[in-house]
Amino acid sequence: MKYFTEEHSEQAVLGRLSPDVDPRFRQIMESAVRHLHAFVKEVEPTMDEWTRAIQFLTATGQICDDRRQEWILASDTLGVSMLVDAINHRRPDGATENTVLGPFHVSGAPQRANGDSICLDQKGEVCRVSGKVTDEAGRPIAGASVDVWQTNGDGFYDVQQPGEQPSMNMRGLFTTEWDGRYAFVTVKPLPYSIPTDGPVGALLNAMGRHAMRPAHIHFIATAPGYETLVTHIFVKGDPYLESDAVFGVKESLIVDFEPDDGAWKAGFDMKLKKTD
Amino acid sequence: MKYFTEEHSEQAVLGRLSPDVDPRFRQIMESAVRHLHAFVKEVEPTMDEWTRAIQFLTATGQICDDRRQEWILASDTLGVSMLVDAINHRRPDGATENTVLGPFHVSGAPQRANGDSICLDQKGEVCRVSGKVTDEAGRPIAGASVDVWQTNGDGFYDVQQPGEQPSMNMRGLFTTEWDGRYAFVTVKPLPYSIPTDGPVGALLNAMGRHAMRPAHIHFIATAPGYETLVTHIFVKGDPYLESDAVFGVKESLIVDFEPDDGAWKAGFDMKLKKTD
Repeated sequence: MKYFTEEHSEQAVLGRLSPDVDPRFRQIMESAVRHLHAFVKEVEPTMDEWTRAIQFLTATGQICDDRRQEWILASDTLGVSMLVDAINHRRPDGATENTVLGPFHVSGAPQRANGDSICLDQKGEVCRVSGKVTDEAGRPIAGASVDVWQTNGDGFYDVQQPGEQPSMNMRGLFTTEWDGRYAFVTVKPLPYSIPTDGPVGALLNAMGRHAMRPAHIHFIATAPGYETLVTHIFVKGDPYLESDAVFGVKESLIVDFEPDDGAWKAGFDMKLKKTD
Repeated sequence: MKYFTEEHSEQAVLGRLSPDVDPRFRQIMESAVRHLHAFVKEVEPTMDEWTRAIQFLTATGQICDDRRQEWILASDTLGVSMLVDAINHRRPDGATENTVLGPFHVSGAPQRANGDSICLDQKGEVCRVSGKVTDEAGRPIAGASVDVWQTNGDGFYDVQQPGEQPSMNMRGLFTTEWDGRYAFVTVKPLPYSIPTDGPVGALLNAMGRHAMRPAHIHFIATAPGYETLVTHIFVKGDPYLESDAVFGVKESLIVDFEPDDGAWKAGFDMKLKKTD
């Protein structure tokens, strides 16, 4: 094709891919360009709508910094993160289900002993969480690493309130005992809003959607020979379970939080899938 | 739908659109989400590929500033800008064809008299450009505004070399005479590279594509009662006509640049379409 035409716009673009481009990259670009052009042809954006799209794309990158990742938020709120997660972690029945990592994980959380608290600011209602890490057949995995993080008693992650919250507040790395057990003390998580002061907040608002996530605790369980499990537990009865702004909820991850001796308690067993 | 599933991922997301959302916005979001999810399902990105996509999206916004618009460049190099332009300016045969605006237009270029030069830095080979602005039937339009801009004799726009080039170098606003004629002096344009030091440059490189645009002069012609015409003229014989990095070339916009008395000359008549 010599020149671009509306009718053959995809071919004009894809015809420029070099014959010796990496095949996987070609596959991705061919699909991306076809869907992008099909979308444009379907909606026929006005010049003004196109300009607003450019502005959204630009602003979404520009608000990102070391602590804020608005593009992950965009991916989350459009269900893309959950979809990519689902595609990459199709688990056999029996293995614990995964859900999205989210943008608030921090590596290098402090290693703690089982039973220790991850709460450094004394806010919120005390909650004891414990469980077992096993293989799919229920055989305990000793020495598995359990990385946990959540919001504090005010509903914010430490990285959202630098200076206000102690660093590494509500984060900890635990190691399962000989019987696969882990245990930690935390506070009962609260529903919270994802950041709404950026382009993604404006997008949610235009869609008539709220920005709330149901209360949850994040987990990453790792053990040699097993697939890493990235997941949450959700608090049963939370009002936002069916409208999680990032679509993270799965039925099997909803857990009872019960009153227990002046505090709360919750149990969560994780069954890891062997690596192939 | 209660919870997100891989199979019904689009419905999970679109089911959240509020019933009273603006219908046009709904149409755009429904199409966007369907194509986005279809793309993800087709290519099944690995977590690592998804992360690299997030990085590309983020970096493309972050390199933007007052003078650099990398998202427009992304849209240009993927043929989206030309497609949106084509959809919005389907012109009857006879009216002059449009092409993309590009990111280097600056409003407020100085008004000049016909025959004036727009070249303030004395670089490049002198070229006289003239023509007529008419309606589709060839009747002259007096008092039409003709906004022109191009790169200088080194192949850069003034806004790409602030401090080096005089401000408003190679830009001018002309008004057609009683007979529809306009004329200005400039330099013969050169092919040039779009910026390659950002994410879009890396993307072009991965696709095995060059970043060159064939030599051209930008025009915007406006007159009351007529559709604004945004276009370029291209230099016949340019080696990049068939591989313009932004797909801007149309056959009807390729113009002879001929030697003329120690300089160059080119003619370009524009036929404007009446507004509906």
